[in-house]
Amino acid sequence: MKKAPSPGSKADSLLYTIQAREPTVPMSLHSLIQELREKNGSKIVLLVADGLGGLPLEPGGKTELESAHTPNLDDLVKDGVCGLSVPVLPGISPGSGPGHLGLFGYDPLQWRIGRGILEALGINFQVGPNDVAIRGNFCTIDASGKIIDRRAGRPSTERCIEVCRKLQTIKVPGAEIFVEPVKEHRFVLVIRAAGLGDAVNDTDPQAVGVAPFVAKGADPASQKTADLANAFLAQVKQLLAGETGINMATLRGFAGNPTIPTFEEIYGLKPLALAVYPMYRGLARLVGMTIGNAGSTLDDQATALAAAWNDYDFFFLHFKYTDSTGEDGNFPGKVEMIERLDGIIPRIRALKPDVFIVTGDHSTPSKMKSHSWHPVPTILHAATCRTDRVTEFGESQCLMGGLGQFEAKYLMSLAMAHAGRLGKYGA
Amino acid sequence: MKKAPSPGSKADSLLYTIQAREPTVPMSLHSLIQELREKNGSKIVLLVADGLGGLPLEPGGKTELESAHTPNLDDLVKDGVCGLSVPVLPGISPGSGPGHLGLFGYDPLQWRIGRGILEALGINFQVGPNDVAIRGNFCTIDASGKIIDRRAGRPSTERCIEVCRKLQTIKVPGAEIFVEPVKEHRFVLVIRAAGLGDAVNDTDPQAVGVAPFVAKGADPASQKTADLANAFLAQVKQLLAGETGINMATLRGFAGNPTIPTFEEIYGLKPLALAVYPMYRGLARLVGMTIGNAGSTLDDQATALAAAWNDYDFFFLHFKYTDSTGEDGNFPGKVEMIERLDGIIPRIRALKPDVFIVTGDHSTPSKMKSHSWHPVPTILHAATCRTDRVTEFGESQCLMGGLGQFEAKYLMSLAMAHAGRLGKYGA
Repeated sequence: MKKAPSPGSKADSLLYTIQAREPTVPMSLHSLIQELREKNGSKIVLLVADGLGGLPLEPGGKTELESAHTPNLDDLVKDGVCGLSVPVLPGISPGSGPGHLGLFGYDPLQWRIGRGILEALGINFQVGPNDVAIRGNFCTIDASGKIIDRRAGRPSTERCIEVCRKLQTIKVPGAEIFVEPVKEHRFVLVIRAAGLGDAVNDTDPQAVGVAPFVAKGADPASQKTADLANAFLAQVKQLLAGETGINMATLRGFAGNPTIPTFEEIYGLKPLALAVYPMYRGLARLVGMTIGNAGSTLDDQATALAAAWNDYDFFFLHFKYTDSTGEDGNFPGKVEMIERLDGIIPRIRALKPDVFIVTGDHSTPSKMKSHSWHPVPTILHAATCRTDRVTEFGESQCLMGGLGQFEAKYLMSLAMAHAGRLGKYGA
Repeated sequence: MKKAPSPGSKADSLLYTIQAREPTVPMSLHSLIQELREKNGSKIVLLVADGLGGLPLEPGGKTELESAHTPNLDDLVKDGVCGLSVPVLPGISPGSGPGHLGLFGYDPLQWRIGRGILEALGINFQVGPNDVAIRGNFCTIDASGKIIDRRAGRPSTERCIEVCRKLQTIKVPGAEIFVEPVKEHRFVLVIRAAGLGDAVNDTDPQAVGVAPFVAKGADPASQKTADLANAFLAQVKQLLAGETGINMATLRGFAGNPTIPTFEEIYGLKPLALAVYPMYRGLARLVGMTIGNAGSTLDDQATALAAAWNDYDFFFLHFKYTDSTGEDGNFPGKVEMIERLDGIIPRIRALKPDVFIVTGDHSTPSKMKSHSWHPVPTILHAATCRTDRVTEFGESQCLMGGLGQFEAKYLMSLAMAHAGRLGKYGA
């Protein structure tokens, strides 16, 4: 591969001169926003309908969103500007972590959240600065210590809870240990001690017929974590010896608490998250949002929003069921959930947010029963919108929208701009 | 120039903190794909009509593609999704090298193929790991050694072949030397020896009235190459002394065999290339594709495709004549070639590829008689397409397509996603 042009010609020497003068790294979007941000008391609402985007069941047909009766969203569209949000990059289907980081304005390829942390967020375990969170899998080993079932025969969640209770008695000198059940063969291990690194290999060999790996750290701080993990695993083996089914565990995705710059640091916004599911409260907490009491329904969320209206600048509302119905392959169910979402729009608009965004963290087409890479319909409503020709909220119409197709990580700078919270860059 | 904010204020110190915490390099697309890729036996066909995009002869008129009768492409459009591919960046007209690298998913600004290598590919010279390939230009020097004609009066290709035969007798101690004619004043020199570098300046001064430069290496390995090149040039001068017209040569674009990650390494795909022209077989070989026997017509290519269908996952078919008619400024000729291309579509669809893409490596508008930067009409056909309103394959309609305008380097991640070969990014 040619790294640089060969020297000699006049053109080439000019090229070298320019390259030598170029700053190596362009200014980051976060630094730019931080430099330009202003405070003005405006309010931004980001309503995330998880997995909002969809597909028609037949080519040329309507998607879930296009099939739904959404008078309130369509009304929002009229004075707003629409577009399609690409969660990560073309073709990349994100999990909830990267999907939300993008919407919060963090490049999901730059800010990666470890599996252990996401697993802990999902069960509402609040990971602290001295913690390393790890995903655990219960497994079955034979008398020689070799794995014969990587998922211990997929035990019931009740059995998982029972075994976790037993493991909660384990003490490892030099650290606090937390063992929390997740589901079936999955649990979360959190090791808490000062100065722990997280560059530790998975002990899960991802194969049967071999023994679990020993944990090793890539640096002294991570070796400390590895030593504690190995000490924990030795006791797990002793405690569960002789059991059938679950008699050992493997560990994956060692991850320390990420030190992500907060919403307040970047945007100067005071943010409140209203999410019913723990995972999304956890993601919001990662970027420094205050976690409000969201209750259990959209109505509860709208009530909480109104009650907190004067105390925050930014409100993240999360609605899960557009994703879960999509994952179930339930087209009419997803349509119904979108209509339910539509029903809450007037209560939010009644608060007169300066910027009101409705979008999703990714698509979850019922046809695919999974997260997908397809761009996500998005409305941005504000007084400064350059309105477009979109008249109904849906994938086809959003393709004609004024926001075009954009990477999700740019949504927050658009929100800040429309909120009047970004000054001019350069004189 | 504001290099960094002046320190002192709280906002400034926060800015420094954020910059310090930002990972300097986001994950690359190739690493991401490598991490997410899955195998599922699906088949992807990439049909590249070289220089496909065009321009109307008069403003508001139809392009070559829009003028062509293309019932089969139009039928493909109906269940597919369309868009416009930007080969490199807006305004940048690529050669065949960057154009194809982009389509293969390699950022053409990151992966640069040296001129010597492209020249060698074009004449079907298979460059090996110990080779440095160089473009040679025959020139005319005067008695004092100064260049008086940089192209030796543009000799006939026959004369070029004749002189190359003479130069093929040159022996340089410590290396194998290959001299191959290209066309008129152009030839390829390949120096083969272990441990050669390619950071060597051009000896072509790109001016008359001065002597050719001496080759110099920027490092010891490249100096070895430079010494061999200088020894070769000394013998060229001796051998051709006294000739009129061609009596010397200059060298440009020293380039070692690039070590590009292969298609299989990045995508886990087993790729077959079916291209009639050597340059495109060479480009495919660069990224590790197997080179099939493409025969000499589209029908031969379709036959070879069907015969190899079970042995590969990915098929690159190249059609040259949409570009060459464009380069000739032959509008009706290009229309005819597009119609010929259209005729082969049913034979490809009969194989039922999971993903079928039709695009070009760049535009070659007959009106301009050259490669251009204009975005290239693209169809992606797969079961997971979010269909759009495009009904006929053409530049204007593709502008309304669901893929929007996208950088060519993202086409492969879209292909992988639609083939069901990419898992979810993050939990």
